[in-house]
Amino acid sequence: MFSPAAPGRGAPPAPAEHQLIVPPLNFAMIAPGIYRSGFPNPRSHPFLLKLGLRTIIYVFDGDCQPYHQEFIRSNSINYQHFRVAANKEPFEEMDHPLVAQILAEVLDTRNHPLLIHCNRGIRRVGCLVGCIRKLQGWAMTAIFDEYQHFSGTKIRISDQEFIEVFKHPVLINPKFGPAWLTDQPE
Amino acid sequence: MFSPAAPGRGAPPAPAEHQLIVPPLNFAMIAPGIYRSGFPNPRSHPFLLKLGLRTIIYVFDGDCQPYHQEFIRSNSINYQHFRVAANKEPFEEMDHPLVAQILAEVLDTRNHPLLIHCNRGIRRVGCLVGCIRKLQGWAMTAIFDEYQHFSGTKIRISDQEFIEVFKHPVLINPKFGPAWLTDQPE
Repeated sequence: MFSPAAPGRGAPPAPAEHQLIVPPLNFAMIAPGIYRSGFPNPRSHPFLLKLGLRTIIYVFDGDCQPYHQEFIRSNSINYQHFRVAANKEPFEEMDHPLVAQILAEVLDTRNHPLLIHCNRGIRRVGCLVGCIRKLQGWAMTAIFDEYQHFSGTKIRISDQEFIEVFKHPVLINPKFGPAWLTDQPE
Repeated sequence: MFSPAAPGRGAPPAPAEHQLIVPPLNFAMIAPGIYRSGFPNPRSHPFLLKLGLRTIIYVFDGDCQPYHQEFIRSNSINYQHFRVAANKEPFEEMDHPLVAQILAEVLDTRNHPLLIHCNRGIRRVGCLVGCIRKLQGWAMTAIFDEYQHFSGTKIRISDQEFIEVFKHPVLINPKFGPAWLTDQPE
Protein backbone atom coordinates (compact mmCIF):
# COMPACT_ATOMS: atom_id res chain seq x y z
CA MET A 1 0.00 0.00 0.00
CA PHE A 2 2.81 2.37 0.86
CA SER A 3 5.59 2.92 -1.63
CA PRO A 4 8.86 4.70 -0.99
CA ALA A 5 9.31 7.90 -2.96
CA ALA A 6 13.04 7.52 -2.53
CA PRO A 7 14.69 4.12 -2.47
CA GLY A 8 16.92 3.41 0.49
CA ARG A 9 20.33 1.78 0.71
CA GLY A 10 22.41 4.55 -0.75
CA ALA A 11 20.46 5.16 -3.95
CA PRO A 12 19.45 8.74 -4.82
CA PRO A 13 15.73 9.60 -5.00
CA ALA A 14 14.03 7.89 -7.92
CA PRO A 15 12.94 10.86 -10.08
CA ALA A 16 16.51 12.24 -10.21
CA GLU A 17 17.64 8.96 -11.76
CA HIS A 18 15.10 9.15 -14.53
CA GLN A 19 15.09 12.75 -15.57
CA LEU A 20 16.75 15.79 -14.06
CA ILE A 21 14.09 18.42 -13.53
CA VAL A 22 15.30 21.91 -14.35
CA PRO A 23 12.82 24.63 -13.44
CA PRO A 24 13.31 27.97 -15.19
CA LEU A 25 15.49 30.61 -13.52
CA ASN A 26 13.83 32.17 -10.48
CA PHE A 27 10.86 29.84 -10.69
CA ALA A 28 8.29 30.00 -7.90
CA MET A 29 4.60 29.52 -7.23
CA ILE A 30 2.94 32.83 -6.38
CA ALA A 31 -0.48 31.54 -5.41
CA PRO A 32 -2.82 28.73 -6.50
CA GLY A 33 -2.78 28.66 -10.30
CA ILE A 34 -0.01 31.21 -10.85
CA TYR A 35 3.73 30.61 -11.34
CA ARG A 36 6.56 33.10 -11.99
CA SER A 37 9.98 32.68 -13.60
CA GLY A 38 12.68 34.00 -15.88
CA PHE A 39 12.86 32.99 -19.54
CA PRO A 40 12.58 29.20 -19.79
CA ASN A 41 15.46 27.47 -21.54
CA PRO A 42 14.88 24.23 -23.48
CA ARG A 43 15.97 22.15 -20.47
CA SER A 44 13.07 23.52 -18.42
CA HIS A 45 10.37 22.62 -20.95
CA PRO A 46 9.71 19.10 -19.54
CA PHE A 47 9.17 20.71 -16.13
CA LEU A 48 6.73 23.26 -17.56
CA LEU A 49 4.77 20.44 -19.19
CA LYS A 50 4.35 18.81 -15.77
CA LEU A 51 2.65 22.00 -14.54
CA GLY A 52 -0.12 21.50 -17.11
CA LEU A 53 0.01 25.19 -18.06
CA ARG A 54 -2.97 26.63 -19.87
CA THR A 55 -1.37 30.06 -20.39
CA ILE A 56 2.09 31.61 -20.62
CA ILE A 57 2.44 35.38 -20.38
CA TYR A 58 5.74 36.96 -21.45
CA VAL A 59 6.52 40.51 -20.36
CA PHE A 60 9.52 41.95 -22.13
CA ASP A 61 10.12 44.67 -24.71
CA GLY A 62 11.86 42.34 -27.13
CA ASP A 63 10.98 39.28 -29.19
CA CYS A 64 10.34 35.79 -27.88
CA GLN A 65 12.90 33.09 -28.70
CA PRO A 66 11.73 30.85 -31.58
CA TYR A 67 12.39 27.58 -29.66
CA HIS A 68 10.06 28.78 -26.91
CA GLN A 69 7.36 29.88 -29.37
CA GLU A 70 7.56 26.44 -30.96
CA PHE A 71 7.20 24.76 -27.55
CA ILE A 72 4.14 26.88 -26.77
CA ARG A 73 2.54 26.23 -30.15
CA SER A 74 3.17 22.49 -30.19
CA ASN A 75 1.66 22.12 -26.71
CA SER A 76 -1.41 24.27 -27.48
CA ILE A 77 -0.64 26.69 -24.68
CA ASN A 78 -2.40 30.04 -24.79
CA TYR A 79 0.34 32.68 -25.19
CA GLN A 80 0.32 36.42 -24.58
CA HIS A 81 3.26 38.76 -25.06
CA PHE A 82 3.18 42.21 -23.48
CA ARG A 83 6.02 44.55 -24.46
CA VAL A 84 6.79 46.19 -21.16
CA ALA A 85 9.92 48.27 -20.57
CA ALA A 86 11.46 48.07 -17.09
CA ASN A 87 11.44 50.94 -14.62
CA LYS A 88 14.47 53.17 -14.97
CA GLU A 89 15.37 56.01 -12.66
CA PRO A 90 14.75 58.88 -12.82
CA PHE A 91 12.20 59.19 -15.64
CA GLU A 92 11.05 55.90 -17.13
CA GLU A 93 8.36 53.83 -15.51
CA MET A 94 6.35 50.77 -16.48
CA ASP A 95 3.10 51.75 -18.16
CA HIS A 96 0.39 51.70 -15.49
CA PRO A 97 -2.66 50.92 -17.71
CA LEU A 98 -0.69 48.17 -19.46
CA VAL A 99 0.34 46.66 -16.11
CA ALA A 100 -3.32 46.74 -15.02
CA GLN A 101 -4.26 44.95 -18.25
CA ILE A 102 -1.63 42.25 -17.64
CA LEU A 103 -2.77 41.81 -14.03
CA ALA A 104 -6.36 41.32 -15.20
CA GLU A 105 -5.19 38.44 -17.42
CA VAL A 106 -3.02 36.93 -14.67
CA LEU A 107 -5.89 37.10 -12.17
CA ASP A 108 -8.45 35.49 -14.49
CA THR A 109 -8.80 31.87 -13.38
CA ARG A 110 -9.91 30.90 -16.88
CA ASN A 111 -6.23 31.33 -17.81
CA HIS A 112 -4.93 29.11 -14.98
CA PRO A 113 -2.61 27.31 -14.47
CA LEU A 114 -0.55 30.23 -15.74
CA LEU A 115 3.14 31.12 -15.93
CA ILE A 116 4.19 34.74 -16.08
CA HIS A 117 7.81 35.30 -17.03
CA CYS A 118 10.20 38.00 -18.16
CA ASN A 119 13.87 37.35 -18.93
CA ARG A 120 15.56 36.99 -15.55
CA GLY A 121 12.45 36.72 -13.40
CA ILE A 122 13.50 39.62 -11.22
CA ARG A 123 12.32 43.06 -12.30
CA ARG A 124 9.27 43.08 -14.56
CA VAL A 125 7.80 39.96 -12.97
CA GLY A 126 8.84 41.20 -9.53
CA CYS A 127 6.83 44.40 -10.08
CA LEU A 128 3.78 42.48 -11.33
CA VAL A 129 3.90 40.12 -8.35
CA GLY A 130 4.30 43.14 -6.05
CA CYS A 131 1.13 44.64 -7.53
CA ILE A 132 -0.73 41.34 -7.01
CA ARG A 133 0.35 41.36 -3.36
CA LYS A 134 -0.89 44.93 -3.07
CA LEU A 135 -4.28 43.87 -4.42
CA GLN A 136 -4.23 41.12 -1.78
CA GLY A 137 -3.61 43.85 0.81
CA TRP A 138 -0.13 42.71 1.87
CA ALA A 139 2.03 45.04 3.99
CA MET A 140 4.80 46.78 2.00
CA THR A 141 7.37 45.11 4.27
CA ALA A 142 6.28 41.68 3.04
CA ILE A 143 5.96 42.83 -0.58
CA PHE A 144 9.49 44.26 -0.65
CA ASP A 145 10.86 41.22 1.15
CA GLU A 146 9.42 38.93 -1.52
CA TYR A 147 10.77 41.19 -4.30
CA GLN A 148 14.21 40.99 -2.69
CA HIS A 149 14.14 37.18 -2.47
CA PHE A 150 14.48 37.25 -6.25
CA SER A 151 16.56 40.40 -6.75
CA GLY A 152 19.17 39.53 -4.14
CA THR A 153 21.53 42.48 -3.83
CA LYS A 154 20.34 43.91 -7.16
CA ILE A 155 17.35 45.70 -5.61
CA ARG A 156 16.03 48.53 -7.75
CA ILE A 157 14.40 51.30 -5.78
CA SER A 158 12.56 52.28 -8.97
CA ASP A 159 10.79 48.90 -8.95
CA GLN A 160 9.81 49.19 -5.30
CA GLU A 161 8.62 52.74 -5.93
CA PHE A 162 6.51 51.53 -8.87
CA ILE A 163 4.86 48.88 -6.72
CA GLU A 164 4.18 51.41 -3.98
CA VAL A 165 2.63 54.07 -6.24
CA PHE A 166 0.69 51.71 -8.52
CA LYS A 167 -3.02 52.44 -8.13
CA HIS A 168 -4.51 51.85 -11.56
CA PRO A 169 -7.83 49.97 -11.36
CA VAL A 170 -7.54 46.31 -12.30
CA LEU A 171 -10.72 45.01 -13.88
CA ILE A 172 -11.43 41.55 -12.54
CA ASN A 173 -14.53 39.64 -13.51
CA PRO A 174 -15.86 38.56 -10.10
CA LYS A 175 -17.04 35.27 -11.57
CA PHE A 176 -13.52 34.36 -12.61
CA GLY A 177 -11.30 36.08 -10.03
CA PRO A 178 -9.25 33.78 -7.76
CA ALA A 179 -10.83 32.93 -4.41
CA TRP A 180 -7.61 33.89 -2.59
CA LEU A 181 -7.99 37.47 -3.79
CA THR A 182 -11.30 37.73 -2.03
CA ASP A 183 -12.07 36.68 1.52
CA GLN A 184 -13.04 33.12 0.77
CA PRO A 185 -10.64 30.56 2.19
CA GLU A 186 -8.99 28.27 -0.36
CA MET B 1 -20.36 42.62 -14.57
CA PHE B 2 -16.77 43.74 -14.11
CA SER B 3 -15.70 45.32 -10.85
CA PRO B 4 -12.43 47.11 -10.18
CA ALA B 5 -10.19 45.37 -7.65
CA ALA B 6 -8.52 48.69 -7.00
CA PRO B 7 -10.46 51.95 -7.15
CA GLY B 8 -9.03 54.62 -9.43
CA ARG B 9 -8.61 58.35 -8.90
CA GLY B 10 -5.73 58.23 -6.47
CA ALA B 11 -7.17 55.81 -3.92
CA PRO B 12 -5.02 52.88 -2.79
CA PRO B 13 -6.21 49.32 -3.56
CA ALA B 14 -9.30 48.41 -1.60
CA PRO B 15 -8.03 45.53 0.62
CA ALA B 16 -5.20 47.66 2.02
CA GLU B 17 -7.75 50.15 3.30
CA HIS B 18 -9.69 47.51 5.17
CA GLN B 19 -7.07 45.33 6.75
CA LEU B 20 -3.32 45.23 6.32
CA ILE B 21 -2.32 41.68 5.46
CA VAL B 22 0.87 40.60 7.18
CA PRO B 23 2.14 37.21 6.02
CA PRO B 24 4.58 35.46 8.34
CA LEU B 25 8.30 36.03 7.84
CA ASN B 26 9.65 34.30 4.74
CA PHE B 27 6.21 33.15 3.69
CA ALA B 28 5.89 31.41 0.31
CA MET B 29 3.87 28.79 -1.49
CA ILE B 30 5.98 25.73 -2.25
CA ALA B 31 3.51 23.81 -4.40
CA PRO B 32 -0.27 23.31 -4.52
CA GLY B 33 -1.43 22.77 -0.95
CA ILE B 34 1.86 23.51 0.82
CA TYR B 35 3.09 26.80 2.29
CA ARG B 36 6.33 27.61 4.17
CA SER B 37 7.23 30.38 6.60
CA GLY B 38 8.96 31.47 9.77
CA PHE B 39 7.15 31.58 13.11
CA PRO B 40 3.86 33.44 12.64
CA ASN B 41 3.36 36.45 14.87
CA PRO B 42 -0.14 37.47 16.00
CA ARG B 43 -0.41 40.00 13.17
CA SER B 44 -0.13 37.22 10.60
CA HIS B 45 -2.95 35.11 12.03
CA PRO B 46 -5.72 36.75 9.93
CA PHE B 47 -3.69 35.98 6.82
CA LEU B 48 -3.24 32.33 7.85
CA LEU B 49 -6.99 32.05 8.35
CA LYS B 50 -7.52 33.16 4.75
CA LEU B 51 -5.41 30.21 3.58
CA GLY B 52 -7.96 27.81 5.10
CA LEU B 53 -5.17 25.70 6.63
CA ARG B 54 -6.01 22.18 7.67
CA THR B 55 -2.59 21.48 9.19
CA ILE B 56 0.33 23.40 10.70
CA ILE B 57 3.65 21.63 11.19
CA TYR B 58 6.25 23.26 13.42
CA VAL B 59 9.86 22.10 13.19
CA PHE B 60 12.01 23.44 16.00
CA ASP B 61 13.74 22.00 19.04
CA GLY B 62 11.99 24.33 21.46
CA ASP B 63 8.46 24.97 22.64
CA CYS B 64 5.68 26.61 20.65
CA GLN B 65 4.53 30.08 21.75
CA PRO B 66 1.26 29.89 23.75
CA TYR B 67 -0.52 32.57 21.62
CA HIS B 68 0.12 30.45 18.54
CA GLN B 69 -1.05 27.24 20.22
CA GLU B 70 -4.22 29.05 21.21
CA PHE B 71 -4.76 30.26 17.63
CA ILE B 72 -4.32 26.70 16.32
CA ARG B 73 -6.67 25.22 18.94
CA SER B 74 -9.40 27.81 18.53
CA ASN B 75 -9.42 27.35 14.76
CA SER B 76 -9.44 23.55 14.92
CA ILE B 77 -6.24 23.27 12.91
CA ASN B 78 -4.41 19.95 13.02
CA TYR B 79 -1.03 20.63 14.64
CA GLN B 80 2.18 18.64 14.66
CA HIS B 81 5.41 19.64 16.38
CA PHE B 82 8.65 17.92 15.41
CA ARG B 83 11.67 18.76 17.57
CA VAL B 84 14.38 19.02 14.95
CA ALA B 85 17.81 20.50 15.66
CA ALA B 86 19.45 22.43 12.82
CA ASN B 87 22.51 21.20 10.96
CA LYS B 88 25.73 22.38 12.55
CA GLU B 89 29.18 21.89 11.10
CA PRO B 90 31.16 19.75 11.55
CA PHE B 91 29.31 17.04 13.47
CA GLU B 92 25.60 17.72 14.00
CA GLU B 93 23.06 16.94 11.35
CA MET B 94 19.28 16.86 11.18
CA ASP B 95 17.95 13.39 11.95
CA HIS B 96 17.35 11.64 8.61
CA PRO B 97 14.54 9.23 9.67
CA LEU B 98 12.77 12.10 11.45
CA VAL B 99 13.05 14.32 8.37
CA ALA B 100 11.62 11.47 6.26
CA GLN B 101 8.73 11.18 8.72
CA ILE B 102 8.02 14.94 8.49
CA LEU B 103 8.17 14.82 4.70
CA ALA B 104 5.63 11.98 4.65
CA GLU B 105 3.22 14.19 6.62
CA VAL B 106 3.89 17.25 4.43
CA LEU B 107 3.34 15.22 1.27
CA ASP B 108 0.06 13.66 2.42
CA THR B 109 -2.73 15.56 0.69
CA ARG B 110 -5.12 14.64 3.50
CA ASN B 111 -3.21 17.25 5.53
CA HIS B 112 -3.53 19.99 2.89
CA PRO B 113 -3.66 22.97 2.80
CA LEU B 114 -0.66 22.81 5.09
CA LEU B 115 1.85 25.29 6.51
CA ILE B 116 5.27 24.10 7.56
CA HIS B 117 7.24 26.59 9.61
CA CYS B 118 10.31 26.85 11.83
CA ASN B 119 11.38 30.07 13.53
CA ARG B 120 12.94 32.20 10.81
CA GLY B 121 11.80 30.16 7.83
CA ILE B 122 15.32 29.76 6.54
CA ARG B 123 17.22 26.70 7.75
CA ARG B 124 15.03 23.84 8.99
CA VAL B 125 12.25 24.63 6.55
CA GLY B 126 14.80 25.35 3.83
CA CYS B 127 16.23 21.84 4.27
CA LEU B 128 12.79 20.24 4.21
CA VAL B 129 11.82 22.12 1.07
CA GLY B 130 15.14 21.14 -0.48
CA CYS B 131 14.34 17.48 0.21
CA ILE B 132 10.89 17.89 -1.37
CA ARG B 133 12.53 19.37 -4.48
CA LYS B 134 14.90 16.41 -4.54
CA LEU B 135 11.95 14.01 -4.46
CA GLN B 136 10.53 16.02 -7.37
CA GLY B 137 13.82 15.42 -9.19
CA TRP B 138 14.96 19.07 -9.32
CA ALA B 139 18.55 19.86 -10.29
CA MET B 140 20.75 20.83 -7.32
CA THR B 141 21.35 24.22 -8.96
CA ALA B 142 17.65 25.05 -8.67
CA ILE B 143 17.35 23.55 -5.18
CA PHE B 144 20.24 25.61 -3.82
CA ASP B 145 18.99 28.72 -5.60
CA GLU B 146 15.61 28.39 -3.89
CA TYR B 147 17.31 27.78 -0.51
CA GLN B 148 19.34 30.95 -1.04
CA HIS B 149 16.28 33.05 -1.87
CA PHE B 150 15.37 32.67 1.79
CA SER B 151 18.82 32.53 3.39
CA GLY B 152 20.19 35.58 1.57
CA THR B 153 23.87 35.90 2.45
CA LYS B 154 23.44 33.58 5.46
CA ILE B 155 23.86 30.41 3.39
CA ARG B 156 24.88 27.40 5.47
CA ILE B 157 26.90 24.85 3.59
CA SER B 158 25.83 22.29 6.20
CA ASP B 159 22.21 22.74 5.09
CA GLN B 160 23.04 22.37 1.43
CA GLU B 161 25.14 19.32 2.24
CA PHE B 162 22.25 17.80 4.18
CA ILE B 163 19.90 18.27 1.22
CA GLU B 164 22.43 16.75 -1.15
CA VAL B 165 23.15 13.65 0.95
CA PHE B 166 19.58 13.01 2.13
CA LYS B 167 18.47 9.64 0.78
CA HIS B 168 16.21 8.19 3.48
CA PRO B 169 13.09 6.59 1.98
CA VAL B 170 9.97 8.71 2.37
CA LEU B 171 6.84 6.60 2.71
CA ILE B 172 4.09 8.17 0.68
CA ASN B 173 0.70 6.54 0.35
CA PRO B 174 0.17 6.61 -3.44
CA LYS B 175 -3.54 7.25 -2.91
CA PHE B 176 -2.83 10.46 -1.04
CA GLY B 177 0.43 11.73 -2.54
CA PRO B 178 0.26 15.05 -4.43
CA ALA B 179 -0.24 14.79 -8.19
CA TRP B 180 2.70 17.17 -8.78
CA LEU B 181 5.08 14.68 -7.19
CA THR B 182 4.15 12.12 -9.80
CA ASP B 183 3.95 12.65 -13.55
CA GLN B 184 0.34 13.73 -13.70
CA PRO B 185 -0.12 17.36 -14.70
CA GLU B 186 -1.94 19.56 -12.18
